[in-house]
Amino acid sequence: MSSTEGKKQAAVAWAAGKSLSVEEIEVAPPKAREVRVKIVASGICHTDEHVLGGTFPVVEFPVIPGHEGAGIVESTGERSDLCETRDKVILFGIPQCGECIFSSLNHKTCYLTRPAGSLQRETDPHYLWNSTFAEYTVVPEFTLAKIDAAAPLDKVCVLACGFPTGYGAAINTAKVKPGSTCAVFGLGGASRIIAIDINKDKFAKAKEMGATECINPKDFKKPIQQVLTEMTGHGVDYSFEVVGTTDTLIAALASCNMNTGVCVLVGVTPAGSTAPIDPFLLLSGRTCKGSLIGGWKMRDSVPKLVASYLEKKFNSDLLITHTLPFAQINEGFELLRAGKSIRTVLLF
Amino acid sequence: MSSTEGKKQAAVAWAAGKSLSVEEIEVAPPKAREVRVKIVASGICHTDEHVLGGTFPVVEFPVIPGHEGAGIVESTGERSDLCETRDKVILFGIPQCGECIFSSLNHKTCYLTRPAGSLQRETDPHYLWNSTFAEYTVVPEFTLAKIDAAAPLDKVCVLACGFPTGYGAAINTAKVKPGSTCAVFGLGGASRIIAIDINKDKFAKAKEMGATECINPKDFKKPIQQVLTEMTGHGVDYSFEVVGTTDTLIAALASCNMNTGVCVLVGVTPAGSTAPIDPFLLLSGRTCKGSLIGGWKMRDSVPKLVASYLEKKFNSDLLITHTLPFAQINEGFELLRAGKSIRTVLLF
Repeated sequence: MSSTEGKKQAAVAWAAGKSLSVEEIEVAPPKAREVRVKIVASGICHTDEHVLGGTFPVVEFPVIPGHEGAGIVESTGERSDLCETRDKVILFGIPQCGECIFSSLNHKTCYLTRPAGSLQRETDPHYLWNSTFAEYTVVPEFTLAKIDAAAPLDKVCVLACGFPTGYGAAINTAKVKPGSTCAVFGLGGASRIIAIDINKDKFAKAKEMGATECINPKDFKKPIQQVLTEMTGHGVDYSFEVVGTTDTLIAALASCNMNTGVCVLVGVTPAGSTAPIDPFLLLSGRTCKGSLIGGWKMRDSVPKLVASYLEKKFNSDLLITHTLPFAQINEGFELLRAGKSIRTVLLF
Repeated sequence: MSSTEGKKQAAVAWAAGKSLSVEEIEVAPPKAREVRVKIVASGICHTDEHVLGGTFPVVEFPVIPGHEGAGIVESTGERSDLCETRDKVILFGIPQCGECIFSSLNHKTCYLTRPAGSLQRETDPHYLWNSTFAEYTVVPEFTLAKIDAAAPLDKVCVLACGFPTGYGAAINTAKVKPGSTCAVFGLGGASRIIAIDINKDKFAKAKEMGATECINPKDFKKPIQQVLTEMTGHGVDYSFEVVGTTDTLIAALASCNMNTGVCVLVGVTPAGSTAPIDPFLLLSGRTCKGSLIGGWKMRDSVPKLVASYLEKKFNSDLLITHTLPFAQINEGFELLRAGKSIRTVLLF
């Protein structure tokens, strides 16, 4: 572990629409119930791209993005007793404070979650409590979890966001039942059965991840919801919106069957956008719901997800299409914008 | 029972925006798997008002509205073996064919349901299979249920729509748990805890039905969702939209808590309207869903609801604020438009 003396590198977003600037920052020591972490690996998520584009709420510039980090505890503040120096940890953007009413409910995220819609903005120099695009970061202890020392940090960092988001949307939020038909709009993550994307270059990866059919809306004159309804007879049982646009949200809702269909919103739409939903889609019996990071209680779940990864119960490595040194972070965002990557992992 | 010879009275809507015209029609004998029913009582529902206003889909003028009828079987067609002449029956607008995939699922409505969003329009001279604003009507046997001969038809007609819609929205669709907090937007039906309406004249009835608090959005400068969030700390557990406007749908969704909140759409919005929903309301964990007639399987459920009524397990009579002779049907609609009635029952 390198010394914490002196300046450390971090990628700073100074304004919407600008590239990240990798520069030296001063990292403060951890205060009470805070932890200072040396980041080893951090994935690039589409939500970070929303930040750079200025379309993510509850962020003020300048900001250090990044919320899919894995690293090693460098030091802990007073009364920070959830981990110790040299522990391997994963940092996540959806906290679990353990004290609010929501922390005590199953499969639901904590009151401190941002963005939370109904919550007031609190001053937060961090981005989603994390700011993992930095050699060192200081975070509240409720936004990280100690994991198995055997875990490869360059791989398990995606268990902070990308993997649990798709996996949890299916098993926690939709509660997909065996034998059901699913449609996944946008192939950024886990997928099942019918995968839909306008970028056919992602189809090979989707099939590798378990999709049984891949269709491109550009290949049809009809709206994709009509195509899916005809393909399945009466619409799919579950649809997942993973793109983050209001058009795909409406298509996903209309694609699930009128009666028992469940549409799960996973993608993060630009701040301030609204989806013009026909209430009759819901009135006939459809359900529309969403989840952040798949509805996991992260502090409890991340160590278990890491254990499952080590036991090879799933292969989240398939999501990682590129690795780059931290200095090439802007190149990682270019790959994302060009639709060439699923996940790029930055190595520090 | 009067003779079926000759012309019979019916209330015909000839065009959008016109009053109903009570005139004589010819009622055909029932064909195979059809039943001819002498209507004894029929409630006036807000959905009928949508028809008169031209804002209900899948209706072509001229049409005979009415879908909350109770009556006596006059004759049955070939292979109509679900009821017999002289049986008391309730007619409902959400059928249960017993053959489609949805009929076989619990608490969900049949594929023949109209309006169904994804279904093609079929030619249907009837309105919602029913057309109960008539002395006699001929309906498919899957859109009625035989009920206990002891049931008072002038009371149990509301078990065809008004009562099961509110009751089922709570127990079938939302699955309200004991101890939870609910908000009901629009006091047309059953209500619990916090009742919201801009018509304070309905508050006495709401309290009689079980509401513990009644609030009028006009009494606040803040949006009502903010008022409810502050009243409850973090938003209600369940909210019910019973008005049928997109504004109240959005307010109801925003009023339930960001995490586990469930918003149930009950009100029928004008055809073609869309609700501009902020996807972040869903992404944080809220669920938005709807149900038609409370998600009951009507053919199975109506006889049981009637039995429960006779055993005084609930008092749906509270919904009936007015009774009128059939000839005064337009007066019944005036009471509805003026917000003076909950349910007006027409007697034939």
